[in-house]
Amino acid sequence: MRTCLATVCISGSLEEKLDACAAAGLDGVEIFEQDLITSASTPEEIRARAARLGLSLDLYQPFRDLVGLPEPLFEKALGRLGAKLELMDRLGIDTLLVCSTVSPDSVDDDELVASQLRRAGELAAARGKRLAYEALAWGTHVNTYWHSWELVRAADHPAVGVCLDSFHILSKGDDPERIAQIPGEKIFFVQLADAQPLGMEVLPWSRHHRLFPGEGGFELVGFVVALLRAGYTGPLSLEIFNDVFREADPAVTVVDGQRSLRWLQQRVRGALDPSDPLREPLTALPKIEPVQAVDHVEIGTDAPDELGAQLAAVGFTLVGRHRRKDALLFRAGDTRVVITPRHGGGTGIASVAVVVADAGAASERAQALGADRAARPVTPDEAALPGVDAGRWQLFFVDAELARWTREFGDTQDSLAAGAAADAGSDAETAGDGATAVGNGLGSNAGASLVLDHLNLTEERGRFTATVLLLESVLRLVRQDPVDVPSRRGLIRSQVLQSPDAGVRWVLNQVPEALAHRSERFPVHVALSVPDAVAAARSAARAGLRPLPIPENYYEDLAARYGVDAQTLATWRELGVLYDADASGGLLHFYTRTVGGLFLEVLQRVDGYTGYGPADAPVRLAAQAIG
Amino acid sequence: MRTCLATVCISGSLEEKLDACAAAGLDGVEIFEQDLITSASTPEEIRARAARLGLSLDLYQPFRDLVGLPEPLFEKALGRLGAKLELMDRLGIDTLLVCSTVSPDSVDDDELVASQLRRAGELAAARGKRLAYEALAWGTHVNTYWHSWELVRAADHPAVGVCLDSFHILSKGDDPERIAQIPGEKIFFVQLADAQPLGMEVLPWSRHHRLFPGEGGFELVGFVVALLRAGYTGPLSLEIFNDVFREADPAVTVVDGQRSLRWLQQRVRGALDPSDPLREPLTALPKIEPVQAVDHVEIGTDAPDELGAQLAAVGFTLVGRHRRKDALLFRAGDTRVVITPRHGGGTGIASVAVVVADAGAASERAQALGADRAARPVTPDEAALPGVDAGRWQLFFVDAELARWTREFGDTQDSLAAGAAADAGSDAETAGDGATAVGNGLGSNAGASLVLDHLNLTEERGRFTATVLLLESVLRLVRQDPVDVPSRRGLIRSQVLQSPDAGVRWVLNQVPEALAHRSERFPVHVALSVPDAVAAARSAARAGLRPLPIPENYYEDLAARYGVDAQTLATWRELGVLYDADASGGLLHFYTRTVGGLFLEVLQRVDGYTGYGPADAPVRLAAQAIG
Repeated sequence: MRTCLATVCISGSLEEKLDACAAAGLDGVEIFEQDLITSASTPEEIRARAARLGLSLDLYQPFRDLVGLPEPLFEKALGRLGAKLELMDRLGIDTLLVCSTVSPDSVDDDELVASQLRRAGELAAARGKRLAYEALAWGTHVNTYWHSWELVRAADHPAVGVCLDSFHILSKGDDPERIAQIPGEKIFFVQLADAQPLGMEVLPWSRHHRLFPGEGGFELVGFVVALLRAGYTGPLSLEIFNDVFREADPAVTVVDGQRSLRWLQQRVRGALDPSDPLREPLTALPKIEPVQAVDHVEIGTDAPDELGAQLAAVGFTLVGRHRRKDALLFRAGDTRVVITPRHGGGTGIASVAVVVADAGAASERAQALGADRAARPVTPDEAALPGVDAGRWQLFFVDAELARWTREFGDTQDSLAAGAAADAGSDAETAGDGATAVGNGLGSNAGASLVLDHLNLTEERGRFTATVLLLESVLRLVRQDPVDVPSRRGLIRSQVLQSPDAGVRWVLNQVPEALAHRSERFPVHVALSVPDAVAAARSAARAGLRPLPIPENYYEDLAARYGVDAQTLATWRELGVLYDADASGGLLHFYTRTVGGLFLEVLQRVDGYTGYGPADAPVRLAAQAIG
Repeated sequence: MRTCLATVCISGSLEEKLDACAAAGLDGVEIFEQDLITSASTPEEIRARAARLGLSLDLYQPFRDLVGLPEPLFEKALGRLGAKLELMDRLGIDTLLVCSTVSPDSVDDDELVASQLRRAGELAAARGKRLAYEALAWGTHVNTYWHSWELVRAADHPAVGVCLDSFHILSKGDDPERIAQIPGEKIFFVQLADAQPLGMEVLPWSRHHRLFPGEGGFELVGFVVALLRAGYTGPLSLEIFNDVFREADPAVTVVDGQRSLRWLQQRVRGALDPSDPLREPLTALPKIEPVQAVDHVEIGTDAPDELGAQLAAVGFTLVGRHRRKDALLFRAGDTRVVITPRHGGGTGIASVAVVVADAGAASERAQALGADRAARPVTPDEAALPGVDAGRWQLFFVDAELARWTREFGDTQDSLAAGAAADAGSDAETAGDGATAVGNGLGSNAGASLVLDHLNLTEERGRFTATVLLLESVLRLVRQDPVDVPSRRGLIRSQVLQSPDAGVRWVLNQVPEALAHRSERFPVHVALSVPDAVAAARSAARAGLRPLPIPENYYEDLAARYGVDAQTLATWRELGVLYDADASGGLLHFYTRTVGGLFLEVLQRVDGYTGYGPADAPVRLAAQAIG
């Protein structure tokens, strides 16, 4: 389906907005009146610019308080309408958005509204224009889509149809299913917006907190299915009033918007039977299965010795050095970490590589979803992992063909050859080409049972929802409910994304504004799961690891909360082990001290504990002197 | 009354929080459990630090899910309680906050709750402690303060009383008047919070959007009166969960909090009869009448010639140069502008001086409200205007005694001697001392009728509500409802403060985050009222002023909206005059081009128009290329 965006959504001048929409590949825009009024360009210049950019101008909006008014006021409104129709002529726009009336002068008289709609439609038709009548959720007398449709039907004029806005419909819990009963050609326009349930009144909710489709909680898949059933053939247009979007870089915001519409169409396709002809107008993405495993994590660091010592202490083995580049491969069982130099840039997650069936298709899908291609220079004989930029890090894709990348480090076990390590020895000669094999590729006893549990990455406030949607749409991960974690520098919004089988667990933390420009003070981390966290902590201590120190007050509170016996508590205290419990089980875990902007967590999930230690996160943040 | 703050309100470590509270002059604090748990200090160290700082530790909080539970769970909770009472012993805290239960296991059985409260009270009393039972607005079975009091009464134990939190009571629209019926000695603690009506569910509203008393819309004066009638003698304690406060500098936030409690007490005093003994415990401020006039505005600039030319073009006369400093005095009728050099710092409002009956008292009041004294070096024979820092500018006070400051500029008309200019000639010798009298002190014809209409200043997001409260409390101005003005870089929250007779009109605009570090792109302005804005625009044009250019699209929209005739429109267009209308009248106005970070507005209010041209502000912002 064609994609469109209302210029009110984004920042900048009208000219900048048009440029951003075209650059992101949108098909058209709605011109928001204030953007035109405040523009120094004439309507003709705007029209020419859009034409040059290949953008269609699909709608002019909004026209307020037209119908349902006493005759003298309606006559006055018709005068206004005439002027705006003339303006639309100059812009080359066919359709005008007419909102249901909110004026205190409006009359509760459906017959009057219908007849005034018809008269307005005659005026519009005389200029070859159409009126798309929209029920605002807070319209005085007309505030449901079905009511607006009944009035349009009664007006019975070819130039009068409805405009359907998902926010006005779904914010009130209205059922979109009846949309399918409206003749498609009478649906003149469709605006899409999502929103989180904030427990707010609908007007401020609508004006400040709309989100792109997929970023909120509205059931937009069913909404679009109903549109398709009605036979709607117009564009899907984003009309998102969001205080953050209004301040952000428009070029970036529009890419996020375009992604949301593509991902929504893909989800609608998935909800329909493959043979259903309704799928035909929906833009398809390269399909992938939900991503179920992380292949390896690349950590950029200016402190490789310190970080390497930490990795070794928790059970990793240095298995090789890249034959050409200054990069090290660490492995513990099937968990791989690559360390690359980051001169003067601290320590952080540079990239994450995930396992997919077809790396090329996965990368194409990510790019179709608006992610920029990430290029990593390789020589012809090296595995070229395709990837994209994903917020503050890069995302790469590994498939069976590309799993041989480990041989460039002299590791004889291909990255996907889990359990087949015994056969790998025969490949040693392939790996001998300048690479330095350091370990035996099997790790220590502790390491063999170590599994990547989750990654914890950070994102700034203005990019947070978009990055969540990017991960969700590119990897087919599933969002859990976000939680707020208190730190000494503000609340941290924490969003878990998981693959359906929890093979991939990804936590995205929103950096408090006060720390936005000091990301070194807000570290990321890699969490590793072990069968026995206390034993792992003891083994790490023997290997020289000094865990993050945990305050004594914390252990006293643990005793009060869980009645932990003194001896256990003493062990935990000595090893820096923390404990949390949920309804099903418990979590035992410890943290390493932060190296640059990164630390490691080693954890043990007991009896099906599924959380991430929410009560312990503030203790950890304070111990890390965040703030 | 004693003032107190819950450590959860502010950012930083527990130690930093204690320091900030003591520095701001608070009497005590509530220790929020998580602040202690995450602290590396022992309870004894915290106790010693507070003692050294002269802070009392008034409350430990929160204790959740104690009563209304089945017996085994209650027994477990009693175990937890015992540990916390022991901890309180070490901290030297007497009172524990017990929240009404939210556990799904809780039972709807008042008799059970009362008996469990009594048993818990016995445990507390054995350690010399007290339990302050608080009804959370979302407590499962106990969620009104009256219910909590009935349970406390039924528990009938000296160690069990209530804690009253204004948020939990007023957020639900509950009537605080019955508080007066609770025996004062059974009200163990009082927490105060304000909030704006956001149309949100009470839980997220409470957790993220509480404000200091006076910053929101709650009727806290009546709340405190009811407390006094009950005979409550404990502290007024701030418990403000606010996402912005949590990220802000704690030292600054606490000063804001202390101000809010002092201003609240002053308002309560004002609401009581002067002879009412209930006033006795309330801390008083130096009293002033509402400020009714601006004496002069000081503009700091690195472009004095350009700014001076603009001032002259709109009707100001340069009346003198300061005899000692590089400062110029411009006057138009009774409106005075002082220009001082600001090397390389652009142009902005450096200070505003207001007219008060007693400048010393007004300044003392401002300092009692936490504002820092602003010192301007003067020689012994010069008028030393007392003043304070007020956000991004300074605030000075002028009374009859200090009105002679103009003579330092050679101006013979004292700043308060409006209408007495004719007598001023006799004072000329006083002014001759090195100062340069430039004009005749009467201004041009245009200038004589020019009146300061309003000031428009900016404030960053994190300081916005606090600066509004500062202006309100220091000058006794009155807030109007805020409005959102769209700019190309985001929504601008705009807050009008007025004196009761509108002699002072002060607009505070919240800078969008995207422009927070680029204030030169978000100018302040001085608005001057004239009897005929079109004549003033013509006269200014003759004097060489080039007004801010307004887009043609704006005039076409004016024609559509108001049916303005072509000739009038042509005049407005030529002169850069804008037009807005409200229910009563209209506004005609024009803007000068921005000099550095400041511009002038000249306006004419027609037929009692009281607004500020909300529809024109976005046009102005776009024309100024904000964004």
